[in-house]
Amino acid sequence: MKIDLNADIGEGFGRWTIADDSALMDVISSANIACGFHAGDHLIMDRVVQAAKERGVSIGAHPGLPDRMGFGRRTMVVSAEEMEAMLAYQIGALKGIAARHGIRVGHVSYHAAFGTMANADQDLADRLARVIAQIDPDLVMLAMEGQPIDLAARKAGLRVRSLFLADRAYQANGALVPRGLEGAVIHDLDKVKARVKKFLESGNVTTIDGKSLPIHSRSILVHSDTPGSDKLAQAIASQIAAMGGEIAAVEG
Amino acid sequence: MKIDLNADIGEGFGRWTIADDSALMDVISSANIACGFHAGDHLIMDRVVQAAKERGVSIGAHPGLPDRMGFGRRTMVVSAEEMEAMLAYQIGALKGIAARHGIRVGHVSYHAAFGTMANADQDLADRLARVIAQIDPDLVMLAMEGQPIDLAARKAGLRVRSLFLADRAYQANGALVPRGLEGAVIHDLDKVKARVKKFLESGNVTTIDGKSLPIHSRSILVHSDTPGSDKLAQAIASQIAAMGGEIAAVEG
Amino acid sequence: MKIDLNADIGEGFGRWTIADDSALMDVISSANIACGFHAGDHLIMDRVVQAAKERGVSIGAHPGLPDRMGFGRRTMVVSAEEMEAMLAYQIGALKGIAARHGIRVGHVSYHAAFGTMANADQDLADRLARVIAQIDPDLVMLAMEGQPIDLAARKAGLRVRSLFLADRAYQANGALVPRGLEGAVIHDLDKVKARVKKFLESGNVTTIDGKSLPIHSRSILVHSDTPGSDKLAQAIASQIAAMGGEIAAVEG
Amino acid sequence: MKIDLNADIGEGFGRWTIADDSALMDVISSANIACGFHAGDHLIMDRVVQAAKERGVSIGAHPGLPDRMGFGRRTMVVSAEEMEAMLAYQIGALKGIAARHGIRVGHVSYHAAFGTMANADQDLADRLARVIAQIDPDLVMLAMEGQPIDLAARKAGLRVRSLFLADRAYQANGALVPRGLEGAVIHDLDKVKARVKKFLESGNVTTIDGKSLPIHSRSILVHSDTPGSDKLAQAIASQIAAMGGEIAAVEG
Repeated sequence: MKIDLNADIGEGFGRWTIADDSALMDVISSANIACGFHAGDHLIMDRVVQAAKERGVSIGAHPGLPDRMGFGRRTMVVSAEEMEAMLAYQIGALKGIAARHGIRVGHVSYHAAFGTMANADQDLADRLARVIAQIDPDLVMLAMEGQPIDLAARKAGLRVRSLFLADRAYQANGALVPRGLEGAVIHDLDKVKARVKKFLESGNVTTIDGKSLPIHSRSILVHSDTPGSDKLAQAIASQIAAMGGEIAAVEG
Repeated sequence: MKIDLNADIGEGFGRWTIADDSALMDVISSANIACGFHAGDHLIMDRVVQAAKERGVSIGAHPGLPDRMGFGRRTMVVSAEEMEAMLAYQIGALKGIAARHGIRVGHVSYHAAFGTMANADQDLADRLARVIAQIDPDLVMLAMEGQPIDLAARKAGLRVRSLFLADRAYQANGALVPRGLEGAVIHDLDKVKARVKKFLESGNVTTIDGKSLPIHSRSILVHSDTPGSDKLAQAIASQIAAMGGEIAAVEG
Repeated sequence: MKIDLNADIGEGFGRWTIADDSALMDVISSANIACGFHAGDHLIMDRVVQAAKERGVSIGAHPGLPDRMGFGRRTMVVSAEEMEAMLAYQIGALKGIAARHGIRVGHVSYHAAFGTMANADQDLADRLARVIAQIDPDLVMLAMEGQPIDLAARKAGLRVRSLFLADRAYQANGALVPRGLEGAVIHDLDKVKARVKKFLESGNVTTIDGKSLPIHSRSILVHSDTPGSDKLAQAIASQIAAMGGEIAAVEG
Repeated sequence: MKIDLNADIGEGFGRWTIADDSALMDVISSANIACGFHAGDHLIMDRVVQAAKERGVSIGAHPGLPDRMGFGRRTMVVSAEEMEAMLAYQIGALKGIAARHGIRVGHVSYHAAFGTMANADQDLADRLARVIAQIDPDLVMLAMEGQPIDLAARKAGLRVRSLFLADRAYQANGALVPRGLEGAVIHDLDKVKARVKKFLESGNVTTIDGKSLPIHSRSILVHSDTPGSDKLAQAIASQIAAMGGEIAAVEG
């Protein structure tokens, strides 16, 4: 049983950092690398790509809105044309860095408001997915099952790697409990491990109202910007190992 | 006789522009496209790449220092490692945009202080040339003959397209008369045309002290940010046509 | 009869410009100076403040959203608290520059989406007006009569200078015809001069549907970023002079 | 005996932080607040000014070079005119924020390369000091005794508050041991406390080669961006209290 463990990496800027990227990359199998718009810069990208190469961690682009001060979390009034351009720019930039280190970019995972905007507009999601396919049809899209980003990727002929968010509460319809609501984020490491265990055993998660919800996923996302994210990743990794699983980037 | 006519393109930012890119691209055969560091942004890049594709103009990356306010003209205290990263980032970004339009990036031309810094440090020039070769060994380097950037590109196995700067005065040793000195820039269109004529006929340019200097080049650069650059490009193009030449991007 | 003629000034960035600031400042009586967020930078601000001082042009702050690429024209998802902070920051920055040249900042005029957001939210407009009054209760607010910005300024105890937009069509209710609609912007210099003449003679403007609308204003705004804005300003100035008027910054 | 304890505050950006500003401000008497160029932004400035007001901490401007990615630590090729403009802009911006909270800006402390450039060029230091005096002659300059910034401030009629850097090694001539050299930074809290004790008792510091050097200072700077800076500040504060001293911003 192969399970992908992935996290957002390189979300600092200049002298600022937000997570212990090295500790995270010691555990995860794939890294979603910030591309210099919402976070990251050319030097950080260069270093985390080098570090990923050394550890055999698979890398992907983590494009965001051009809003460092807002960390890419604020929706913006931008045209679909501009969204396409900023997506192509960021994936290309990471591919340039990766090429110099002789490795390839394997996947794409939208950051925060960039993803929110795509999931709120199927036409935009479709246009963006086609941009990815134009750049490299072998790129794998990371998405939550059934959302516009997921559907768009499949329409564009891309493979999709569906995510399980182990530290976020689910609603019965499969959507996440929005941040800000009580119980939306699960901070207790033991509870997160129990959720991972159940997910690996049964492919289900217990929703916030106590139901069992099937999750078709072989990839677990760790939010790197929550305090102690490296500890969380290690807890999940040890749970996977305890159940005989292997942490590895799976292809779609 | 094929002669490349090239210019820096897309050196605006947001609502700001610096040249009439459309008029220039109607005349030139290859465009050095700003990559969002010293000038340009993802949307401008997307539009000029589209416009270049429509006109059959060959495109290249025009990487610069991350200094929009200084237009990339101020040298910066940055490590060679960071220079490598910013080069890879910018070439990659343009390749991403180009890929979405189904065309390829054919060459690289350093902008202003980025080039000055490389030409002042052979080791840096060598490292940067190797980055280009790692990203795509088919990229052609634009350079002035005999300078560190030229030598580095050849060492790295890249082809080089040597430039003739028709509106800049040369010294007897082949170097340009530095900007700011009297006569460094030739503004008179008739004089520029006469220089182009002599260059095409004899492969020589008259230096500032009246000597004849051989120029091994099949590519003429037009500085797009001088006022009336589109008129200058048209004047050179008509001179080339009048002599039976064809304007086309040449391969090295 | 004193009439204020004002324009947005210093809306370039680094090497980029958008209007002929010098020619405009030879004609206008007050300058709304970009403060480095949507446009402008510390060096441009320093130079235009110096130029305004030399010409006896009154200066005001022209704060905008922190979005150079969008020229401050895109609304943003920002809290009222952040709007207050960016307003205080920008007015303060201009006051710092002005202080070093020994002149004072006399007024405030919101730029584009900054103003749109304030006019769409009376509570926000009120909060912003109070920030201005806290910084300097002698600052005069530029506003269109009856809009939330106008009302907020009066509530906060600020004087208001009401604007007449000579090159923009009015609706019968006093609002502008939105940009993009036919006839919204009046490009014909003779028509603009005729509107100025009528305004000065009768205090009225002819609305887009042919009605006569009273405009309580002694200040005419010239949009500096329309091509030929300096010619427009000169045309208006000569019309004012022909009618015996004097161009001068009026106090509220 | 009153001793000023000051630290650089607000050196985050958007979501990024570099120190525990709240913990530091619970201990210090004056805060050098980043002004949005090398670090900080309008929202962070607004919040730390509010927090300083609540704690009775005196605030000052901490202007830096416009280089967030380099944290203002890289010297730049900028004219004296531009340095003057960026200084006026930043001091003004903080004064704008402070005015909205009803408190005043009391001092100026240059950040990193901004200060290095001023200390390397007496003429530049003089010009900058005159800018400060033009903006507000009551602003106190923070400086190391005898350096160009100190001399310039006195020439410009400004009061100077001389700094003692408790965690940095001194050379016999009064200059700091440059960062990067062995022993330049003193990390051991007990050693730092011992240095503070000696300084308070005798007004001397032991230089790196074991000599006793007089320090004319009543202000101790804590580098906020070293890990554990809040603990360092608390250690110094408790040492001062143990000796009967009072921590308070002193005037010059």
